Amino acid sequence: MNHLAADCIFCKIIKGAIPSCKLIETKLSYAFLDIGPLSPGHTLIIPKFHAQKMHELPDEHLADILPVAKKIAIAIGCTDYNILQNNGALANQEVMHVHFHLIPKPDAETGLGLRWKPLSPSIDSVKELAEKITKNLS
Amino acid sequence: MNHLAADCIFCKIIKGAIPSCKLIETKLSYAFLDIGPLSPGHTLIIPKFHAQKMHELPDEHLADILPVAKKIAIAIGCTDYNILQNNGALANQEVMHVHFHLIPKPDAETGLGLRWKPLSPSIDSVKELAEKITKNLS
Repeated sequence: MNHLAADCIFCKIIKGAIPSCKLIETKLSYAFLDIGPLSPGHTLIIPKFHAQKMHELPDEHLADILPVAKKIAIAIGCTDYNILQNNGALANQEVMHVHFHLIPKPDAETGLGLRWKPLSPSIDSVKELAEKITKNLS
Repeated sequence: MNHLAADCIFCKIIKGAIPSCKLIETKLSYAFLDIGPLSPGHTLIIPKFHAQKMHELPDEHLADILPVAKKIAIAIGCTDYNILQNNGALANQEVMHVHFHLIPKPDAETGLGLRWKPLSPSIDSVKELAEKITKNLS
């Protein structure tokens, strides 16, 4: 509990200071039902580490998230679902503590809807960008 | 390479039978730029294990994905971005091999757009659902 923030609603949920409909708790993660769900079973999986963005989390916390999501998807029994995690207000993040949404998609109208407008870059420009990113990786 | 499928485009990319703009490869995962990106830097991170849906993957493959996504987000230098993974055609899955999208969100028009229409269940019905799912978890 060393990495929690005093004024964060999700840190308060982890500490039990605010009630939640908990599903699973591990040493590193906490999962509970969203009370404003896009579909029944809409779950939030959060690290027990206060950080706003995914890339600010320690790897051990990141590694724990998806195995928890897997257990919950199986327990819900949903066949179609989306995993979503938003970083930054521009990307629709509303609570500034990293959270992964597991959103069942029971039919076309319920659950997450996506706007998908691909760009059409040249293959050469994609290759150039890959080289640039790869340099930053090494 | 034991868990790849002969007729899957992403398995062919992992094997090098189809070219890709690779960013990172680990023992368990492979990451490359999407050639039909929603924004510059749109990356796909895939397990080296052929499964259609997230909950069908072994935990060790799941645990490897997000630390790879973290490295790439830092290398791209994006501050706002979405992580998305779609399971099933109803949930907008197009290639039937698990893939995680890392989609930079440089401005309101570019990148991922979301349709967010929350339901308004009673708190009692959310609690009941949590109990039901928790029973399946144990």
